[in-house]
Amino acid sequence: MTTIAILGGGNGGFAAAAHLQSLGHTPQLYNRSEETIAAIQEAGGVEYSGAAGDGFASVPVITTDLEEALDGAEFIMVCLPAIAFSGLATQLAPHLDGSRPILLNPGSTGGSLAFRETLRDAGCDSVPPIGETNTLTYICRKRGDDHIHISSVVENVRFASVPAAERDAFEDVLEDAYPSPTPVENVLHTALSNVNAVLHPPGILLSAAWIEHTDGDFRFYYDAGTPAVANVMSDLDEERRAIADAWGLDVEPFPELFADIGSTSKEAGESGSFLRMLRESEPNKEIKAPSSVDHRFFNEDIPFGLVPMQTLARIADVQTPTIDSLITIASSITQSEYRADGWTIDRLGLPDDMAAVEEEL
Amino acid sequence: MTTIAILGGGNGGFAAAAHLQSLGHTPQLYNRSEETIAAIQEAGGVEYSGAAGDGFASVPVITTDLEEALDGAEFIMVCLPAIAFSGLATQLAPHLDGSRPILLNPGSTGGSLAFRETLRDAGCDSVPPIGETNTLTYICRKRGDDHIHISSVVENVRFASVPAAERDAFEDVLEDAYPSPTPVENVLHTALSNVNAVLHPPGILLSAAWIEHTDGDFRFYYDAGTPAVANVMSDLDEERRAIADAWGLDVEPFPELFADIGSTSKEAGESGSFLRMLRESEPNKEIKAPSSVDHRFFNEDIPFGLVPMQTLARIADVQTPTIDSLITIASSITQSEYRADGWTIDRLGLPDDMAAVEEEL
Repeated sequence: MTTIAILGGGNGGFAAAAHLQSLGHTPQLYNRSEETIAAIQEAGGVEYSGAAGDGFASVPVITTDLEEALDGAEFIMVCLPAIAFSGLATQLAPHLDGSRPILLNPGSTGGSLAFRETLRDAGCDSVPPIGETNTLTYICRKRGDDHIHISSVVENVRFASVPAAERDAFEDVLEDAYPSPTPVENVLHTALSNVNAVLHPPGILLSAAWIEHTDGDFRFYYDAGTPAVANVMSDLDEERRAIADAWGLDVEPFPELFADIGSTSKEAGESGSFLRMLRESEPNKEIKAPSSVDHRFFNEDIPFGLVPMQTLARIADVQTPTIDSLITIASSITQSEYRADGWTIDRLGLPDDMAAVEEEL
Repeated sequence: MTTIAILGGGNGGFAAAAHLQSLGHTPQLYNRSEETIAAIQEAGGVEYSGAAGDGFASVPVITTDLEEALDGAEFIMVCLPAIAFSGLATQLAPHLDGSRPILLNPGSTGGSLAFRETLRDAGCDSVPPIGETNTLTYICRKRGDDHIHISSVVENVRFASVPAAERDAFEDVLEDAYPSPTPVENVLHTALSNVNAVLHPPGILLSAAWIEHTDGDFRFYYDAGTPAVANVMSDLDEERRAIADAWGLDVEPFPELFADIGSTSKEAGESGSFLRMLRESEPNKEIKAPSSVDHRFFNEDIPFGLVPMQTLARIADVQTPTIDSLITIASSITQSEYRADGWTIDRLGLPDDMAAVEEEL
C-alpha cells in the first residue's frame, strides 16, 4: 500500500484522504490554512459517509507544513483549484527528486503542462511525471468541519501524464481506488475533456442576473438547465471537438462523456441532446446555484478551462467564436482579466507549432 | 396641419395616430394584417390615455391598403420593427415621387440607410429624404384592441436624415409633436444612439435561463438590472463611444443619454453609473421580462442594433470584443444567424471606406 501526500483540504482533499485510507493507503494531508484542518487535526482523521461507505478514516499526518506531508510519501495527489497550482508548484520545486509522481485531481485544462512549466521556472531539475484527471474523482460536499459526504466515486475518469510515456506511474493508485479509470493518449486529451469547462460557463453566464437577484436560490444544473443554456453548451462543445480533431484526438461528444462518468443517464448520453443531458443528471439535480458570480464557475473554469482550450485552438488554427465570446463576456461580468491571467501558451510552456508541441508531450 | 401616413399598427403606430390627431394632424393608419386594426376600424379611431391626455382620436383612414394610407399624405411615419423595413420599402418604392419625407420612428441602427438601399434596389428613382429617431417617441402599451396607454412622450429624441442636408423636412412635424426633439449631424449619430441596442442585449443574455425557467416572471429592467448586467452594458457602451469617436461624433455616455430622454433620474445620468441608471429608471421599473428568448430584445436589437454598430466599427477599424461576443452568444441562444441576417455593410449600402461613407450621408 502507498503513502500518499494529499495536498489540499477542500472537499476533494477530504474525500481523497478518507477514501484512500479506507482502501488501506496512508494519507498525509496538507493544507495551507490552519483553520480548514483544525477540526480533523483534533479528531485525528476524517468522518465520511456515502458512496465509499460510512466510517472514520484515521489520517496520521494532517499539517500546514508541506515538508511534513511529503515526508515518506511515494505519491503526491493535488486536490486544489487550478489557481493554486502555480504557488504550490513553486513551493514544491525544492522538495522534488523526480521519483514521486504528482497527480492533479483534477487538472482543469492543461494543468500538468502549467505545473511542469512552473516547476521548471522554479529551478526544479528533476521534474517527476505529472498526471491529471479530467474531473475530480468524487462528487462530494463537506458536512461540517470534519465530515465529508461522498455522493459518488466517479466512473471512467480520464487520465494522462506528461511525459505521456510515464503514465504507468499513475495506474497502480488509480486502478486500486477508482472504478474503471480510463487512460487516454496524452494530456491534451484530458485537457479537452475538462468536464467543468463545458458544464459551467454557459449556465452561469446565462443566469448571472438571476444569481445576483436571488443569491443563487435556484437549482443550477436543473432549473437553469434550459434550452438556451443547452444551445450555447452545444455550440461550445462543437468547438471543443473541432480543436481535439485538429490535434488528432478522438474525444466523444460531451453528453456521451457526461453519461460515461455517471453524471447523467445512459440514454441522455446516447441521444446527444444537451437539454436531456441536463434534465437527466440525477447527481447534479439538487445542487444550488452559486450565491454570487464571484465563483469558481467563472474564476476557475474560464482562465484554466476555456482560455487554455482557446490557446490549443490558436496553435492548431481552429476558430472558436463561442469560446472566445464566453471568455469576453465572463471577463466583463466579473470585471476580470481572465484571458491575461489564464493558461496562455507561455504559461503552458508550449511552442507555437503543433509538431513541436507534440514533442513536448 | 399635416396629413400623415402612419405605417404600422403596433404600440407605436397606435400611439402616433392618437397623439398626432390630438394635436390637429390627420393620421392615416396602415397595417398589413386586418386583425390588428379591426377593432379601431369599427370604432373609427383610437382611445388613448396617459401622458398625452385621455380621449378618443378619430382616424379617418384605417386600412390594410398601403396606397389608401398614402393617398394625400404629405409625410410618412414608419412605426414598425426593423425587420419589416425591407419588405415595406419594396412595397413603397412605386408610390414615391421624392416629395414626401419618410420618418423611421425609430430607425434602430442605420435603418434610414438600409431603407434607402432597399428603395434603390427596388428601382425607386426618386428617393425622398429619410429620417430616423434614436428611440420610439413614446413609452406606451396597448390596453385592449382599441386603446393605447402612453406613459411618456419621450423628451430630447435625437433625429437625423439622409441626406443630412434635408433634415429640415422633418423639423416641422417633430417640433410640433414632441418635447425638445434634438437634431444631430447625421444618421450615424442616431444609429449609434439606438437606445434599445445598449439597453436590452446585456440584460436578456444574462437572464436568458431565468426567462426560460419562469416565462419572464420578473421585472426586466429592475430585478435583472444587476451589477453583472451593468458591467456588460458599460463595456458595450465604451465600444459604442469608441466607434462614434472614430467617426468624429460626440455621443454622450449612455446613462446621460438615458437621463436626457427622461428614462432615468438626472442624478443617475450624471453619475455615469449603469447600475444606478437601471435602479432609478422609474418609467421602466415595473416592466416585466419577455416570456421567451424569441423576442425583439434579441431578434431586433441584435441584427438591427449591434450588427450595424459592428459594421460601422469595422469600416472605422475599431475593435468591439463585447459587441462581437454579445452577437455570437445571442445567435447561439436562439440558434439564429443574426450576423448574416442583420444590417451588414451591403445592406446599409455603404462603401468600405470612411471618407466614401461620409459622402454617402
